[in-house]
Amino acid sequence: MAGGGELKLLGMWASPYVTRVKLALHLKGLTYEYVEEDLGNKSELFLASNPVHKTVPVLIHNGKPICESLTILQYIDEAFAGTGPSLLPADPYERAVARFWAAYVEDKLLAPWRMAFRVKTDEERAEWMKQTVAAVDTLEGGLRECSKGKPFFGGDSIGLVDVLLGAVSSWVRGAEQLSGHVLFDAEKAPLLAALMERFGELDAAREVMQDVDSLVEYAKMILARASAAEPPSKLATSG
Amino acid sequence: MAGGGELKLLGMWASPYVTRVKLALHLKGLTYEYVEEDLGNKSELFLASNPVHKTVPVLIHNGKPICESLTILQYIDEAFAGTGPSLLPADPYERAVARFWAAYVEDKLLAPWRMAFRVKTDEERAEWMKQTVAAVDTLEGGLRECSKGKPFFGGDSIGLVDVLLGAVSSWVRGAEQLSGHVLFDAEKAPLLAALMERFGELDAAREVMQDVDSLVEYAKMILARASAAEPPSKLATSG
Repeated sequence: MAGGGELKLLGMWASPYVTRVKLALHLKGLTYEYVEEDLGNKSELFLASNPVHKTVPVLIHNGKPICESLTILQYIDEAFAGTGPSLLPADPYERAVARFWAAYVEDKLLAPWRMAFRVKTDEERAEWMKQTVAAVDTLEGGLRECSKGKPFFGGDSIGLVDVLLGAVSSWVRGAEQLSGHVLFDAEKAPLLAALMERFGELDAAREVMQDVDSLVEYAKMILARASAAEPPSKLATSG
Repeated sequence: MAGGGELKLLGMWASPYVTRVKLALHLKGLTYEYVEEDLGNKSELFLASNPVHKTVPVLIHNGKPICESLTILQYIDEAFAGTGPSLLPADPYERAVARFWAAYVEDKLLAPWRMAFRVKTDEERAEWMKQTVAAVDTLEGGLRECSKGKPFFGGDSIGLVDVLLGAVSSWVRGAEQLSGHVLFDAEKAPLLAALMERFGELDAAREVMQDVDSLVEYAKMILARASAAEPPSKLATSG
């Protein structure tokens, strides 16, 4: 399969997983049709394209669906290798280092952070946030080692790990508004805080990132819905 | 970094994650030094090579460590692209399909199966096994679609998904001995059952796979240790 051809992205505006894919497409300078899915009333195209997970994002390239955001990012990098910058470096060892930290961000930072929004008790939430904060520390150390003074995890330009981090930047600021907790604190994690700043200045970020106030409204609505069914402790957000 | 050079694998014999890497190295026909780690008394080399996770496997190539089994597998495929067969196909779309199912095996099949061995109550165990059995069903459907009558997920020869599945084959048989549960039942999942049969006949499998009786003894020892501290329900295995 060559680069070029028709690209369609099935997404949901608030999802940071969809945002990752939008970022990659914008960074590559690829033109695509964006289709907002109503996840309460999933389209036939969507269900036929991702019958296993029934989740966004789905990228459809020349009629063929690709699912799961990390798989989609690597697909974009490989199918459009000749177009725009690469998300992964060329050297196999540097690629392994990027994949290592991408998996770390996914499993040790974002997974517990998501859980902190979902659990019922304050004790559980505190435990997930403890794991999240510890992961920020480790990641700061990884960034110090990998970037060697350069602006991004990927070095001089944005790479896979930067896309995963940048894609949650609006949620990070939204969670800050909701709970007061600063995920990438400029004193405790100065390199990560600076990376997120620089990310926000990229054209791709300006074009793609969600409006923070809209995310806060969305989060409040979700939490209010949950409040009808759940005890109040579920409502408190932490992020 | 070119293929060739010195390869050292830090591992632990019972770990299916280490087995994945051994399989990939054998399939590629690569020579390596294997070092068994005592996880109760971790070596300096091991701790210096994987300070973030402190887990096996670690592959050291010309003095540079690569950690996390999925990252290692892709590293082997890329750093030794000219040596032996490839774990991932060349076509970007086929690579995406392989990565999709590899993530499925990791997250939806193996993760809940592992959890079923770790939880304390029979109710929890039943829930994780329900998820595992559902994943086997979905995977059987995926294999039907992907393999199109060919012997492996990867087609005519063993690929990434087959390595992940094959690497647990001794544990699958060990769990069968311990609990009586057949994970890849020939009636319910005939394609997966046949794939596991064919996998067992490969030279790489014969060279690498753990002895099932030894694994059963090892599992009994771990369970007996747990019994000193935990209520009996934790002892029952399910696999």
